[in-house]
Amino acid sequence: MNLIRVAVNGYNVIGRRVADAVAAQPDMQLIGVAKVKADYKARSAVKKGYKVYAADEKGRKNFDEAGIQCFGLSRDLVREADIVIDATPEDIGRQNKPMYEELGKKAIFQGGEDHELAGLSFVAQCNYDKARGKQFARVVSCNSTALCRVLHALDGGFGVAKANVVIARRAADPDESGKGPIDSVVLDPASIPSHHGPDVNTVLPNFPVVSMAMKIPTTHMHLHSLIVSMKDGSSLSENKIIDELGSSPRIMFVTSKKDGFKSTANIMDMAREMGRPRNDVYEAVIWKDSIKVLGREVYLFMAVHQEAIVTPENIDAIRAMNAMMSKDDSIRTTNHALGISS
Amino acid sequence: MNLIRVAVNGYNVIGRRVADAVAAQPDMQLIGVAKVKADYKARSAVKKGYKVYAADEKGRKNFDEAGIQCFGLSRDLVREADIVIDATPEDIGRQNKPMYEELGKKAIFQGGEDHELAGLSFVAQCNYDKARGKQFARVVSCNSTALCRVLHALDGGFGVAKANVVIARRAADPDESGKGPIDSVVLDPASIPSHHGPDVNTVLPNFPVVSMAMKIPTTHMHLHSLIVSMKDGSSLSENKIIDELGSSPRIMFVTSKKDGFKSTANIMDMAREMGRPRNDVYEAVIWKDSIKVLGREVYLFMAVHQEAIVTPENIDAIRAMNAMMSKDDSIRTTNHALGISS
Amino acid sequence: MNLIRVAVNGYNVIGRRVADAVAAQPDMQLIGVAKVKADYKARSAVKKGYKVYAADEKGRKNFDEAGIQCFGLSRDLVREADIVIDATPEDIGRQNKPMYEELGKKAIFQGGEDHELAGLSFVAQCNYDKARGKQFARVVSCNSTALCRVLHALDGGFGVAKANVVIARRAADPDESGKGPIDSVVLDPASIPSHHGPDVNTVLPNFPVVSMAMKIPTTHMHLHSLIVSMKDGSSLSENKIIDELGSSPRIMFVTSKKDGFKSTANIMDMAREMGRPRNDVYEAVIWKDSIKVLGREVYLFMAVHQEAIVTPENIDAIRAMNAMMSKDDSIRTTNHALGISS
Amino acid sequence: MNLIRVAVNGYNVIGRRVADAVAAQPDMQLIGVAKVKADYKARSAVKKGYKVYAADEKGRKNFDEAGIQCFGLSRDLVREADIVIDATPEDIGRQNKPMYEELGKKAIFQGGEDHELAGLSFVAQCNYDKARGKQFARVVSCNSTALCRVLHALDGGFGVAKANVVIARRAADPDESGKGPIDSVVLDPASIPSHHGPDVNTVLPNFPVVSMAMKIPTTHMHLHSLIVSMKDGSSLSENKIIDELGSSPRIMFVTSKKDGFKSTANIMDMAREMGRPRNDVYEAVIWKDSIKVLGREVYLFMAVHQEAIVTPENIDAIRAMNAMMSKDDSIRTTNHALGISS
Repeated sequence: MNLIRVAVNGYNVIGRRVADAVAAQPDMQLIGVAKVKADYKARSAVKKGYKVYAADEKGRKNFDEAGIQCFGLSRDLVREADIVIDATPEDIGRQNKPMYEELGKKAIFQGGEDHELAGLSFVAQCNYDKARGKQFARVVSCNSTALCRVLHALDGGFGVAKANVVIARRAADPDESGKGPIDSVVLDPASIPSHHGPDVNTVLPNFPVVSMAMKIPTTHMHLHSLIVSMKDGSSLSENKIIDELGSSPRIMFVTSKKDGFKSTANIMDMAREMGRPRNDVYEAVIWKDSIKVLGREVYLFMAVHQEAIVTPENIDAIRAMNAMMSKDDSIRTTNHALGISS
Repeated sequence: MNLIRVAVNGYNVIGRRVADAVAAQPDMQLIGVAKVKADYKARSAVKKGYKVYAADEKGRKNFDEAGIQCFGLSRDLVREADIVIDATPEDIGRQNKPMYEELGKKAIFQGGEDHELAGLSFVAQCNYDKARGKQFARVVSCNSTALCRVLHALDGGFGVAKANVVIARRAADPDESGKGPIDSVVLDPASIPSHHGPDVNTVLPNFPVVSMAMKIPTTHMHLHSLIVSMKDGSSLSENKIIDELGSSPRIMFVTSKKDGFKSTANIMDMAREMGRPRNDVYEAVIWKDSIKVLGREVYLFMAVHQEAIVTPENIDAIRAMNAMMSKDDSIRTTNHALGISS
Repeated sequence: MNLIRVAVNGYNVIGRRVADAVAAQPDMQLIGVAKVKADYKARSAVKKGYKVYAADEKGRKNFDEAGIQCFGLSRDLVREADIVIDATPEDIGRQNKPMYEELGKKAIFQGGEDHELAGLSFVAQCNYDKARGKQFARVVSCNSTALCRVLHALDGGFGVAKANVVIARRAADPDESGKGPIDSVVLDPASIPSHHGPDVNTVLPNFPVVSMAMKIPTTHMHLHSLIVSMKDGSSLSENKIIDELGSSPRIMFVTSKKDGFKSTANIMDMAREMGRPRNDVYEAVIWKDSIKVLGREVYLFMAVHQEAIVTPENIDAIRAMNAMMSKDDSIRTTNHALGISS
Repeated sequence: MNLIRVAVNGYNVIGRRVADAVAAQPDMQLIGVAKVKADYKARSAVKKGYKVYAADEKGRKNFDEAGIQCFGLSRDLVREADIVIDATPEDIGRQNKPMYEELGKKAIFQGGEDHELAGLSFVAQCNYDKARGKQFARVVSCNSTALCRVLHALDGGFGVAKANVVIARRAADPDESGKGPIDSVVLDPASIPSHHGPDVNTVLPNFPVVSMAMKIPTTHMHLHSLIVSMKDGSSLSENKIIDELGSSPRIMFVTSKKDGFKSTANIMDMAREMGRPRNDVYEAVIWKDSIKVLGREVYLFMAVHQEAIVTPENIDAIRAMNAMMSKDDSIRTTNHALGISS
């Protein structure tokens, strides 16, 4: 089988994970990663056998001085690829797009870029087939990905009249030690509704969702409080909601009373127990015992591992854009490689 | 004028504040405070000229050993009082009630006690007149107090069909150094809806409110995300909401863009600038630029200073139960003494 | 009496406090404050009756648009002053110096500026008389101020052979919500010894002190662990250390066992109980029961309220530079005005 | 080869790790784990194929109700073992000792128990041979283990005259969401010197070390600031220190400038990159560029992963007590199985 040749441009939170995930797929070859800094992350990539490329000549010099073998510049890497995962910081993807166009390469951007840059925003279980043949796609942000999975499932099962979500965002990733707050809640009042609702609409057009968001002093997992009004409440029940969500891909249930999940920290701890690489949680995690039906409304708590949840989406987007597999086959293959049970 | 003789039983977060507030009223006399520990808070009370009483004989011995003058036991203090503010920890109020009954004293409990203990749950602007002549009343918790103020105002102005609120609770008070979490969100999924909605109903019976709550690693201010559906959205506007809330007592507006309130920390900082004692914020604080009307729904962010917001309610409850003043006069008098502008 | 006319240039953490402290002195007049942003802090200054000046024309326009009366630019303010407290952010003081020179004004810089900018680094109890007649002085940083107070006292009493200090620094001020870390310790290993030791030496030349520092996720108070070797340990005792430190100005003792000071949070709480403006702690705070003598070495824990400790130093520096009072009289006057007991 | 049969009693922070480490050794068999709660950690143990035992009959009932197969009580498990790792909470080990004595089993306690309980406190590279033939040993706490490794190495190389260490302790493990502080430093002033120095002395008798300790709001890694006076400073140099520490087992260097380790979070992040199970760091981690020699004194920063560092010590203690291998062979075998490079 000819493996598709994948380059990863940007090797921080998302790039590192997608690189490993690409390397774990049976139908993909990771041909290299491009990175700015010659730090411990670069050394780690080398130890894994990844070819490391520099972002520019200055970076290449830094790699040389650090004694880290550098195989060229990111442009050299892109030239060798069939498709590029652009995991560079916000707005750099926009600057990179002309290079991809010039070299005639497909590319997948991340949620930090605007929808318009790619023209297609992607969540595997919602719109896999729309990516077929596209040159560009954009995997939406961690919060939007989780919301799309859950709202799409609920809508398919019951018909959603209106969804409200309040997102308590982790303010920084674990190794972003410069970012706060330390002891306050930060919010942008002018941004009600927050950008998350419209971002869901790039995947699920016209879906009636309104979001509010704030930043809190945690480094692991966003916490969503969902209030979803169904079109028809007559036959709703908690068990039906559980069945519907449980049969959708990449949604994981935990329980507080039965299994001891009292906080987001327990979920991260479980991922460590499971032996997940980097203790990554690719699933949208819903407390099963938080699901409550009151009249037409469904309430629930959901946790989102901001570092990890878009990893499988990037993999599926590669296959979708290149017509390598059907949606169900791709999701199944990705899940198997990453240890996602369903 | 005969001053009403007020005893404060319990001298921690709430007791300390109510003691100072009582001392600041023109029609009240603080006859003493009862306290368990002989610590720096006790020394501070002595420096303010408050008579300190011990909770029991063991406590009295501790005061003696610490060289802090002790005027007797809490029972002695209660005997001298016309009314007692019971600011003891959760469930101790319940244990104290028989003493108040035996001595024939009025008492005001706090939100940690059950509604049934007092029979009347109190928020000044909602049900002041119901407290007239009562022996017992209960000031509801900080979150319930804020919700009652705002929902009562909105309902009076426009008619509320349904209110949803998501509460991100500060996990510990500033000096509760033993409590966490440090880096996670703690929630009780089985408790959707959380107890806050039913607690609002002890003041506003049958009010249609559903709450969700979580604990986050902050020490200052709860953060409420409110989603309120009005009965009739035809004439709603953000300005009308602002007018209605602005004309209700003890609601304060801040703005993010105009005045730089980007976080709950800015509100605490403002209170320090204002010279508020202990930087206390007695008002429910609403970001004016967060108020958004979408169809029949009103969205807004509100911050609640958990240590301070019930202080004026305790003062008003004293007057209401003793028929000392009308509701408006009491609110005005309390506000003036505490520096609350409206 | 002719009051000395003091301008405060910069109105953030230090400027706000020094402005209030100047206004509270019997021999000083606060003629105005200069500020960049037209935010709630500016409104608060206006409410206090302070004349507010803008940093530049753009700032003046912002004040106009915000409806905050602006009395001119900072240059106009400086022109009216006898002396300027420059409380602008790091490195802006350096940029302002030529203006002060051109206008022939005295100025006091803060610890963010280099010693060389002023030529004299100041801590009242260590080198008050050296400031006499100087045009420029620099009040050293919060950590250096605390160390100078304590080490100078110990050296005077016993002779210090060598001092080591490990400083766990609060990473952000309470309202700096953008700064982290949230859940890690940040350090600069290349900076052993840290800059604090040399900074102490700008006040106490050749004093044998070596410091190590790290940033931790707190917003209130630095925590110093001191290990001080005395020249002669033969007559050392914990009581003698306590007597020596207790007789030095602006050092406060607290105790853990006796009075319940278990954490830095208790100290901030005590300041709230004392009614200190903004709960400011001007004193270097030492746990009395942490003082331990082992052979020639003295061990102790000290907490430093980073926002407040340099406030009295700025006031004393004004008097010292203008030969308004003797050292002891100035310290006594400042302390009285600020409520510092000794 | 006959495998030694190891039981793990207690399956929380340490027990879980030692269980996996035992299972990874070529000469050991994990015969089961005993656990109190029927939670997600128990389910995870089952998924790994570990036989789970209950602590008591009530626990067994809980396992039954949760549908988790339970193989008996901890006593049953102990009966089948050659040696028991007692990883139960503080003071439970003491209560378990009579059972081990009655059943004639060897047991290894953790640092939460007193030295006297076991009679031998153990750090592999310091006193491996003393454990030969002993029925009981105690692996010292995470902080003591790290200090023993480093101080023993420095003393062997240069002769230590006096060591001072200030320990900024992470206040809670990642999943201990109930514990604080959130925004303060907690200390016990009466405990200078802290218990860490005397605890080091249970392994290195009479070693001249004095420790001070505080708790800070982090969940990952303790941070040690070391100040070590050597007997002879004449030939000291930073490179010699690096050589000495680098040739000792289970000490890892990181660098700030060269490799980007700016905080303890970067170390945890590196462990995730390395694919370490649960991102565990078994090594004492020293910032190479923090090592500074000033006269006779050596300064350095060290980070200690509190969850993981004692894992290899428990494994080595099993071999030492049973005379299964020499010290060097055991350390090498353990390191190889756990992915520790030296």
